[in-house]
Amino acid sequence: MTRLVSARPAPAMINGFDGGKLADLPERERTMIERRQALLGSSYRLFYETPVHPVRGDGVWLYDADDNAYLDAYNNVPSVGHCHPHVVEAIASQAAVLNTHTRYLGEQILDYSERLLATFPAELNRVMYTCTGSEAVDLALRLARYYTGGTGIIITENAYHGVTTAAAEISPALGPNMPLGQHVLTVPAPDNYRGDGRDVGDVLAENVANAIAFMRRHGIKPAAFIADGIFSTDGIFSEPAGFLKKTLDVLHEAGALYIADEVQPGFGRLGTGMWGFMRHGITPDIVVMGKPMGNGMPIAAAVMKHEIEQKFGADIRYFNTFGANHVSITAASAVLDVIENEALIENARVTGDHLLAGMRALQETVPSIGDVRGIGLFLGLDFVKDRETREPDGALALKVVNGLRDRRVLISASGPAGNVLKIRPPLPFKIEHADLFLTALKDVLEDAGAAA
Amino acid sequence: MTRLVSARPAPAMINGFDGGKLADLPERERTMIERRQALLGSSYRLFYETPVHPVRGDGVWLYDADDNAYLDAYNNVPSVGHCHPHVVEAIASQAAVLNTHTRYLGEQILDYSERLLATFPAELNRVMYTCTGSEAVDLALRLARYYTGGTGIIITENAYHGVTTAAAEISPALGPNMPLGQHVLTVPAPDNYRGDGRDVGDVLAENVANAIAFMRRHGIKPAAFIADGIFSTDGIFSEPAGFLKKTLDVLHEAGALYIADEVQPGFGRLGTGMWGFMRHGITPDIVVMGKPMGNGMPIAAAVMKHEIEQKFGADIRYFNTFGANHVSITAASAVLDVIENEALIENARVTGDHLLAGMRALQETVPSIGDVRGIGLFLGLDFVKDRETREPDGALALKVVNGLRDRRVLISASGPAGNVLKIRPPLPFKIEHADLFLTALKDVLEDAGAAA
Repeated sequence: MTRLVSARPAPAMINGFDGGKLADLPERERTMIERRQALLGSSYRLFYETPVHPVRGDGVWLYDADDNAYLDAYNNVPSVGHCHPHVVEAIASQAAVLNTHTRYLGEQILDYSERLLATFPAELNRVMYTCTGSEAVDLALRLARYYTGGTGIIITENAYHGVTTAAAEISPALGPNMPLGQHVLTVPAPDNYRGDGRDVGDVLAENVANAIAFMRRHGIKPAAFIADGIFSTDGIFSEPAGFLKKTLDVLHEAGALYIADEVQPGFGRLGTGMWGFMRHGITPDIVVMGKPMGNGMPIAAAVMKHEIEQKFGADIRYFNTFGANHVSITAASAVLDVIENEALIENARVTGDHLLAGMRALQETVPSIGDVRGIGLFLGLDFVKDRETREPDGALALKVVNGLRDRRVLISASGPAGNVLKIRPPLPFKIEHADLFLTALKDVLEDAGAAA
Repeated sequence: MTRLVSARPAPAMINGFDGGKLADLPERERTMIERRQALLGSSYRLFYETPVHPVRGDGVWLYDADDNAYLDAYNNVPSVGHCHPHVVEAIASQAAVLNTHTRYLGEQILDYSERLLATFPAELNRVMYTCTGSEAVDLALRLARYYTGGTGIIITENAYHGVTTAAAEISPALGPNMPLGQHVLTVPAPDNYRGDGRDVGDVLAENVANAIAFMRRHGIKPAAFIADGIFSTDGIFSEPAGFLKKTLDVLHEAGALYIADEVQPGFGRLGTGMWGFMRHGITPDIVVMGKPMGNGMPIAAAVMKHEIEQKFGADIRYFNTFGANHVSITAASAVLDVIENEALIENARVTGDHLLAGMRALQETVPSIGDVRGIGLFLGLDFVKDRETREPDGALALKVVNGLRDRRVLISASGPAGNVLKIRPPLPFKIEHADLFLTALKDVLEDAGAAA
């Protein structure tokens, strides 16, 4: 059973600011919203009915202009903590000494590349740097298409991979007005909550095989399947480890590649190693990383097997002006230091387990919590209107997101129906922060009349 | 007379490192080159036969590991000078306090946007931020296509606009193996040295009109003409001011847009105001900027008329995670401070005029200097095999580039035949630096036997 085109509704825009509770805001913030509307493109959206105005960050905390503290349970870019002093010091020192590009020799990029590649299986042995995850995805698509000679790309139904033309064309999560690319086919995400009970790995491999067959019948040569390793915008699906294995066999048999989009799960967030794909016992052909790489400095990368980039590299020039400049690389290197020194992967596992257990306990008294899932510090809480039908309750998720914001806990929601709380804090999120989050969540659910 | 497809040869790869003078390098640098080859994608290229290894930058100077000083006559990214203390201080202070995204309220982005938009004609009244010029060009293409409903893009024959899939498809300068996009047509650059003697503005407008007619005959709706305001990779063409005017009339009559790519000429480099298009007395529909914007911090932007982004913004989500984060915006703001405080636009004009005069004096004794052109601190020196035929001499340009490097003056070459020296230093390049450059250039030309 394959659905090549998603029948799911467009995701709710939970981050819009369409009026909201503007009247609740102080004059200062209301003026800022008016200035945004007068200056910035209309695509800009604010989080929450009552937008937040942070002026200072420290670890897992953000502070607003009145010095109120907000617990950050959402931001994965400041992955080792907002304004981590080791990263700040690295940026400041390097910016004062040199910041130039890769057409000159530099030790920093080489030292960092060795360190980064050492975290990958030996076959993944070359790296190329960009400034954003979108650029890295876009480069991965160029490499995959050039290497295979194919044009067909397979994605999941509510995937998000970025905002360049080519990345947006494989990002149905951008909404119903964003047309997919001509040779882009979607397959259902490996959803083991609303699936048909069969093994999600078998189903995914079958769907990918059918998508490839569909392409062949229509004269399209398949190039790659690209997937976010935690299927974040599809609703957060991590289990069971290993479910991607059969899909890789199908792809490789067809001469197509697997691109692992680790922009969301990468750099230790899952608590089981540096990269999400490792849990699946697979070696992707290209791995794309971004957001947490420089703790806010714009640096991203694609890591690949040498043979995949060799012909492209010989034939086509590629120079990313700011990519891997000295300051970005130095920040990225400091991030690796902190992940090691503060044992953040272990912390993601321990705090993640505690959060999972806490949310599962809550589930026992809250009928609208249909499912609790995820791994490490990338967790999802799936709200339903009814536990039997499992009908998504996006309205409740939206209420909880805004209720938590009013209690100064920052969070968002995900999934095609916007009904899955996305818990994705900076990695130094400790048991004590998890307990603050769980208490606030319980409180909001009681207020919403959702607790039994 | 229109050529829709360029008949010119592929540009020489003057930045390749294919062997080069490896043996001349110290062991340390040779090892670094081997490490690059073992770690980085093969697209990475080094400048010069004998690559440079800078470890420190200060103003218009770079210093290598042995503390030799190199005069930087090429880099436009450190536009207000390498490691300018005011920009470094701004980055360091902001990185320690907060660095987050545009889905929260922030004063910095609003203050900067007001300041930036104030440098544009009133009709250009909205800004959207990205991290790189490639991303900004890619966004401009998305906006132009969505607004016009067209797909056709017109570019110059040896244009370069970036490295994302969509930007590379309009960048023939990436080499003969990079296929242009399906609906992309080229027109000759406004070359008033090798042209047919007619007014370049008339010729360009005629060629653009013909390209639009060609599209229409083939069922392609034109979306935009995009051009680098100084035609840098085409060979650097700035004169006469105003030559873009007629082309804009042709475009607007056809319902197509003009996208001004100011990534190279923008932020005061031409010495005549902040933006290159201003010399032409035109108002583009979208303006794209990048490289010098944050003096090395990855920040770029597209500025546009409100009506062009309004429907896109209402229909399609666009969120650039790192785009306009606090540190990038703070760096960009510090760059505007320095441009103003140090009167760098005026300096670009004064030093540029001095350089132009110096190179024109040199031209009198060097027959292989066919033309000296450009404006402000974006100048070109066109080497020819023969002044009558004006046949480009890419080999001599390459020799001069490497000869200057050996004298520790950093420069590169441009144009479809790689025969045009590209002089594009940081903006605090003073008369004394210009004189150092001119002396070294004369010396290299004498050594090459090119001086009479």
